[in-house]
Amino acid sequence: MPNPTAAMLVIGDEILSGRTRDANMYFLAGELTKHGVDLAEVRIVSDDAAAIVSAVRALSESFDHVFTSGGIGPTHDDITADCIAQAFDTQIDVRDDARALLAEHYKKSGSELNEARLRMARIPDGATLIDNPVSVAPGFTLGNVHVMAGVPLVFQAMVASVLPTITGGQPMLSQTLRVLRGEGDIAPTLSALAEKYDDLSIGCYPFQKDGAFGANIVIRGTIGTRIDAAMTQLAKELEL
Amino acid sequence: MPNPTAAMLVIGDEILSGRTRDANMYFLAGELTKHGVDLAEVRIVSDDAAAIVSAVRALSESFDHVFTSGGIGPTHDDITADCIAQAFDTQIDVRDDARALLAEHYKKSGSELNEARLRMARIPDGATLIDNPVSVAPGFTLGNVHVMAGVPLVFQAMVASVLPTITGGQPMLSQTLRVLRGEGDIAPTLSALAEKYDDLSIGCYPFQKDGAFGANIVIRGTIGTRIDAAMTQLAKELEL
Repeated sequence: MPNPTAAMLVIGDEILSGRTRDANMYFLAGELTKHGVDLAEVRIVSDDAAAIVSAVRALSESFDHVFTSGGIGPTHDDITADCIAQAFDTQIDVRDDARALLAEHYKKSGSELNEARLRMARIPDGATLIDNPVSVAPGFTLGNVHVMAGVPLVFQAMVASVLPTITGGQPMLSQTLRVLRGEGDIAPTLSALAEKYDDLSIGCYPFQKDGAFGANIVIRGTIGTRIDAAMTQLAKELEL
Repeated sequence: MPNPTAAMLVIGDEILSGRTRDANMYFLAGELTKHGVDLAEVRIVSDDAAAIVSAVRALSESFDHVFTSGGIGPTHDDITADCIAQAFDTQIDVRDDARALLAEHYKKSGSELNEARLRMARIPDGATLIDNPVSVAPGFTLGNVHVMAGVPLVFQAMVASVLPTITGGQPMLSQTLRVLRGEGDIAPTLSALAEKYDDLSIGCYPFQKDGAFGANIVIRGTIGTRIDAAMTQLAKELEL
């Protein structure tokens, strides 16, 4: 059985403007690979309702799971929860269980649960809350869409809360061979290898650094012995 | 007149698998911002022809410019050029001008211009070559799509070759104010500010680090004096 597929939707003007370098995509990609879920597509859109709704619909229809990052805080530019509700044609309002979580948290910390903070208790009808052990304000799962915060520490904690609820497949394994040769020289060997081992994914990633050039050859698959066999043959053919 | 819009398409299994952390998106986002082009969406897809063709068509129709990264090398998994041709329903073959560039380069370096390397001279009909001062094998522009290599050094050189050919708008300027307060406390102030300065984009990006928490408030726009005015008002209202 093939592994379940996933897409990620990053909501963030700050990444598109080049101000911030994304960290959540890199983290999620690694976690999904370990969990046996194939991350097939990532989209980054700005804090624009039409763009978010359209991306959520397209990704939710095409993949088994969608993970979103960003836009669920208390400020005016946090519109993700409302957009998810709109994408699923469902209602959204402050929900009692989410409000109770926030009320207890702000009571302890001595801050006021003001109107802005109450926005973080807006949860679409039919959604399940995602636990946030870092800063309490929950994420949520609606249908196959998992809605999480953009702050890396909180995002990571929410991923840890969500992943156990998702049936994974076989973890993707990989081995890398670094060779100091031009891609053009090893391409014919790789091409033949890819044909023979068609259950594996064989990628070639060239690099140039400090005057040296070469390539990392990465062989990926779910069966370790097959990867071993392909790597052994590759090393032999490249006379390493 | 609004700034031209752009999308980026990253082609790369190695990013989706979590093996590599993207560097090109962050670089391009910064360059486009300086050039007055608004990066509105980024997509990352795997080395899969159907996914690439479909993304190229969708982005090319929706935005003024599309920049792609990756998949134009000599190996079997380098299918971007063929996918671009398919997306535009045009022919692709080894082109004489691109072949001549490669022939001269490999003659100098003493390497053979073999069949694999000749793949890098495959250019769709009607495309314009993009200069590659790093490793010679060219990128190309077809319609509004600029096709570039994934190796960061080469990608950056190609961006430098392409950007002067693109009419930019007004560079997006920004100022950041770092405050050690909860987002929920400053949200009402920001919301009112965003309504008053509706020609500016006002974003709030919370952080938690080493036990401290706060937010970076970023005000973006094309008119420096407007950003100054909004920042001055913000600082006053937050009593900084």
